[in-house]
Amino acid sequence: MLCLKVPTDAAWAVAALRDADAVLADHAHCELKAASNALSLVGRHPGDPEIARALSDLAREEIEHFQRVVSVLAARGVAMGPPPVDEYAGALRRAANALPRPAPATDRDRLVDRLLVGALIEARSCERFQLLAEASRDVDPELHALWKELLASEARHYRTFVDLAVHAAGGDRAPVVERLERIAEAEGAIVAALAGGEASRASIHG
Amino acid sequence: MLCLKVPTDAAWAVAALRDADAVLADHAHCELKAASNALSLVGRHPGDPEIARALSDLAREEIEHFQRVVSVLAARGVAMGPPPVDEYAGALRRAANALPRPAPATDRDRLVDRLLVGALIEARSCERFQLLAEASRDVDPELHALWKELLASEARHYRTFVDLAVHAAGGDRAPVVERLERIAEAEGAIVAALAGGEASRASIHG
Repeated sequence: MLCLKVPTDAAWAVAALRDADAVLADHAHCELKAASNALSLVGRHPGDPEIARALSDLAREEIEHFQRVVSVLAARGVAMGPPPVDEYAGALRRAANALPRPAPATDRDRLVDRLLVGALIEARSCERFQLLAEASRDVDPELHALWKELLASEARHYRTFVDLAVHAAGGDRAPVVERLERIAEAEGAIVAALAGGEASRASIHG
Repeated sequence: MLCLKVPTDAAWAVAALRDADAVLADHAHCELKAASNALSLVGRHPGDPEIARALSDLAREEIEHFQRVVSVLAARGVAMGPPPVDEYAGALRRAANALPRPAPATDRDRLVDRLLVGALIEARSCERFQLLAEASRDVDPELHALWKELLASEARHYRTFVDLAVHAAGGDRAPVVERLERIAEAEGAIVAALAGGEASRASIHG
């Protein structure tokens, strides 16, 4: 799906749905982190109006989703709880940074990588919401609708991040897609390594 | 104005308007930081639905203002530039933290202080936008309208932060207002100390 190299096992969703409240609470934190990350990228690259516009729009939408997920949690009588340990995003950033390059990284290269890491996080969320939507179709119509809504926006955000990466790289798509492929391989390895952990059963990422 | 102890000299606005582009660019970064700060507070206090709702609404509004200011900057042909050095907010947080308390600080006390610091930042912005609105009334109708719009929302945000601080403190308003008074005194001292600096001429804060 999208650019992912390693599919999540369908059994993951069945296990995750045994603790849907934890998946929701985890995802509420993911939306907050995604909004903060987008704002941080805007603040670090203030000279680019396209980045400012697209990522501030994205941050607003992530906050709306946070609010949507929080209202679903409230309706289920569940408090949000502390943020989960997020090994996945940090590992992905480090892996992207460690990938070989033809020349020492510039600020622009680092921005492209941050955007591609954002794209992959959205792609993995999208894939997992698809599995959750399928697994909850006949079991919980409300959650099924929520996952469908979220997966559609994660897919849009994936494209936003890839397009912004191409824009940040100066408009030449081919080398950016090539870099995305390399980071996607690293992402697959990270997801496979995390899949054995206890946290994987109730977490969107890793 | 609001709870401020030390008024900004009206001459500040006249000097600031000589470089309105710098004030706008500085404020765009302020809005980004305010949104990030609100999201960070939500993430750190996930068990409180009132904090989550009010501060995520506030973050959305700060992003909308960021976008509004960026569009005004674009219309003026001005790029945003790197974030200004923000001595004010850090000094205010440290000052609040250093104020005496009857007992060692709890997480709740620290949250109340963060919210009151937020209130004071909004109050100072509100006061300075009022001065800018007055100074630009007959000079630049577009900027005059922008400052008026922003000062109204800063005043609302001030009240939101104070109300949330009372809520976080368990509902007893008097000790929170007393604490706000102490932090406001520290804020006045910080603003007075920063007023001599070069940055003060083109910056909303400090």
